Amino acid sequence: MEKTVKQITQSSRDAAIQMAAISTEKKNLVLARIANALLENKESILDANRQDLESAQESGLAGPLVKRLVFDEEKLQDVIKGLGDLAKLPDPIGQTTYQNQIDKGLELYRVTCPIGVIGVIFEARPDALVQISALCLKSSNAVLLKGGAEAIKTNQVLVKIITEASKKEGMPDGWISLLLTRTDVTELLKMDEEVDLIIPRGSNEFVKMIMDNTKIPVLGHADGVCHTYIDKDADTEMAIKILIDAKTQYVSACNSTETILIHQKIASEFLMELSDAFERYNIKVFGCDKTCKILSCAEVRDWHTEYLDYSVSIKIVSDQDEAMRHINRYGSGHTEAIITNNEDTARRFMSLVDSGNVFWNCSTRFSDGFRYGFGAEVGISTSKIHARGPVGLEGLITYKYKLFGHGQTVGDYASGKSSYIHNQSSKPCPFDR
Amino acid sequence: MEKTVKQITQSSRDAAIQMAAISTEKKNLVLARIANALLENKESILDANRQDLESAQESGLAGPLVKRLVFDEEKLQDVIKGLGDLAKLPDPIGQTTYQNQIDKGLELYRVTCPIGVIGVIFEARPDALVQISALCLKSSNAVLLKGGAEAIKTNQVLVKIITEASKKEGMPDGWISLLLTRTDVTELLKMDEEVDLIIPRGSNEFVKMIMDNTKIPVLGHADGVCHTYIDKDADTEMAIKILIDAKTQYVSACNSTETILIHQKIASEFLMELSDAFERYNIKVFGCDKTCKILSCAEVRDWHTEYLDYSVSIKIVSDQDEAMRHINRYGSGHTEAIITNNEDTARRFMSLVDSGNVFWNCSTRFSDGFRYGFGAEVGISTSKIHARGPVGLEGLITYKYKLFGHGQTVGDYASGKSSYIHNQSSKPCPFDR
Repeated sequence: MEKTVKQITQSSRDAAIQMAAISTEKKNLVLARIANALLENKESILDANRQDLESAQESGLAGPLVKRLVFDEEKLQDVIKGLGDLAKLPDPIGQTTYQNQIDKGLELYRVTCPIGVIGVIFEARPDALVQISALCLKSSNAVLLKGGAEAIKTNQVLVKIITEASKKEGMPDGWISLLLTRTDVTELLKMDEEVDLIIPRGSNEFVKMIMDNTKIPVLGHADGVCHTYIDKDADTEMAIKILIDAKTQYVSACNSTETILIHQKIASEFLMELSDAFERYNIKVFGCDKTCKILSCAEVRDWHTEYLDYSVSIKIVSDQDEAMRHINRYGSGHTEAIITNNEDTARRFMSLVDSGNVFWNCSTRFSDGFRYGFGAEVGISTSKIHARGPVGLEGLITYKYKLFGHGQTVGDYASGKSSYIHNQSSKPCPFDR
Repeated sequence: MEKTVKQITQSSRDAAIQMAAISTEKKNLVLARIANALLENKESILDANRQDLESAQESGLAGPLVKRLVFDEEKLQDVIKGLGDLAKLPDPIGQTTYQNQIDKGLELYRVTCPIGVIGVIFEARPDALVQISALCLKSSNAVLLKGGAEAIKTNQVLVKIITEASKKEGMPDGWISLLLTRTDVTELLKMDEEVDLIIPRGSNEFVKMIMDNTKIPVLGHADGVCHTYIDKDADTEMAIKILIDAKTQYVSACNSTETILIHQKIASEFLMELSDAFERYNIKVFGCDKTCKILSCAEVRDWHTEYLDYSVSIKIVSDQDEAMRHINRYGSGHTEAIITNNEDTARRFMSLVDSGNVFWNCSTRFSDGFRYGFGAEVGISTSKIHARGPVGLEGLITYKYKLFGHGQTVGDYASGKSSYIHNQSSKPCPFDR
């Protein structure tokens, strides 16, 4: 008989408890075993993927979606390299991040530990399944996966290979599970007692749907309405170069610039130069009143628009403050850049713009875990709670306080018989690393 | 005309943006001015509080609630001392917590910053109003306050004094606001776009009601079902001493032990000793089957029970694993202790028990921000996301990434013209401290 989502989630919880105690060496060994097993079972993976691709073509799935569904030799090599890189990263679990000697023989440590059960819901892209499972393993979390229906055969084979390889190394049953149906997702989103965090991977609408339908905390971002502000003291040549990169280097990325704000003092001349450059890239401009007069372009319909395409919104602002007010009102808190040679202006911008990533004189496209040097990326968060901006393994961990005593009671301190010392140090917890 | 909650919240957001740039010196100066102003306006505070107390007595408010409502000379002195202590703490804002040189002339910094707008909803206790506003000020957050209806006159006077004193020092309008009616709270809980974090202070039912009725993240705890496990290798004399403290030192505290788990090997003898000790404190025991046979006590009705009273649940367990399973199932993730002389047993307990605070050989009552040496406590969180356990000022902050460039584009790195260096250091951000 098929297990219910409730039963599967219960196994995840049981596994999660045990995973907290698995050693760094064991986790890295399991990552290596998984990489080997994927290689050894290459043919069955590629075969399952071919079946998924055939069904997708038969059912007339759109081209970009089919492309994301492909899991070929190259994707396999990428995934295997990713597992190797992940094994080399330091273990995020068991790190002492605060220590305080409360009194003689009463020692407090704050130690990083896994969050517990992570639910991952993604569209298409079977390579994301391997990547996110490996991140959960490295951070000692149990993972509940739900992939897109179009990748079901590939996903099933991948989870089977990972499960068997990790079981041989003694990983607890249930640390990784695959949910299969859309009803399963509905069930999963209700389990706020059992599931500690949801990570959605997919389109904005998809992520927004998840966020709107669960009480479980969600790590991710629905929108990426990123801004670049060209200040009156900008190096305009640099500004053009950066804007072309920020708008065209990968138009469907969440960190592409969607709105350009230009200081009125330089607007006329700069807009003409920019317009020439943008024409070469077939970029369609939507402007504010003033911009439309200069460029005779179409008017912006909604300043919240994330085009994810060769289109851009442009607004002329009277000063830096208007630029910042616009960003704080219409931005999604993802990434905003200022182009200026004035240090004070840059400082104000980076302090007063309320966004996860604030850049000076460079492209918004740099906002990314790998470019930031994290070695691994769990996702990009536009929330201000828990994790913000590009999120590495630290997004999958929490901490607990461990207090080591010798029979101390609070009553003795309340009565004055004992008194607190409160002596902070950087001593690591004796029970951890 | 009265401002709507929407309008008030909008002023909070505007103020929040400006508060991100206020200097440490200014914030500490404002804290000192507020302390002075409270002292200077002592009579109007005490007078307003007398009026609230009269109304409370007329309307027949329960004794413990009336007690919490009192704001007398002593409370005022406590609050003023608290403001002085808070000023002495390091500024939590503007700290660089990660630095990476992405490339020559492309420097990344992760810098702590305020969360934005904090909504604080509390029952009675006007001293909590001053305390939490000061914590928000120190962490550069705007605060929206809603106190209990029975403290309305005291709260209004306090907010007026704080607003005027801080305005004189140039604090932005709207950084502190008071909401007055129950309808205002309903409105506030809906503002998930405008309010970044809700902190509820009050009874468990009150906190649970807040958590169940908002999409805004909530920092707090509804339950505190804390456990103490007496292992077979426990020093039983120490165990009795700790249990008396953990159960009786302050029965209505969230970190008091509510369930005692005892290893079967020592259960009979230990229960007799414990029962004698508990009788002296008039503690009522509710037991499992086996406990009831030994002590002839009443049976436990629900292992989730938080008595907050002179009552306790006791269960005999077959081994450590059963104790841990019980805690992970029925605990609220608040605080759990083990009493044992066996280091390996303690290590397993502290690793596998999924709770914010895990203690070895001491009382669960130590779980508290001041006892932990934080200098300030925002609250205790049983969530695993954002902040866990006792939460100091760090619960009121988030961070942003600041990237300093010289015209770099992602295209140059994608084409291989430039390449990433990724050189981590501990250099602080030049625009911050």
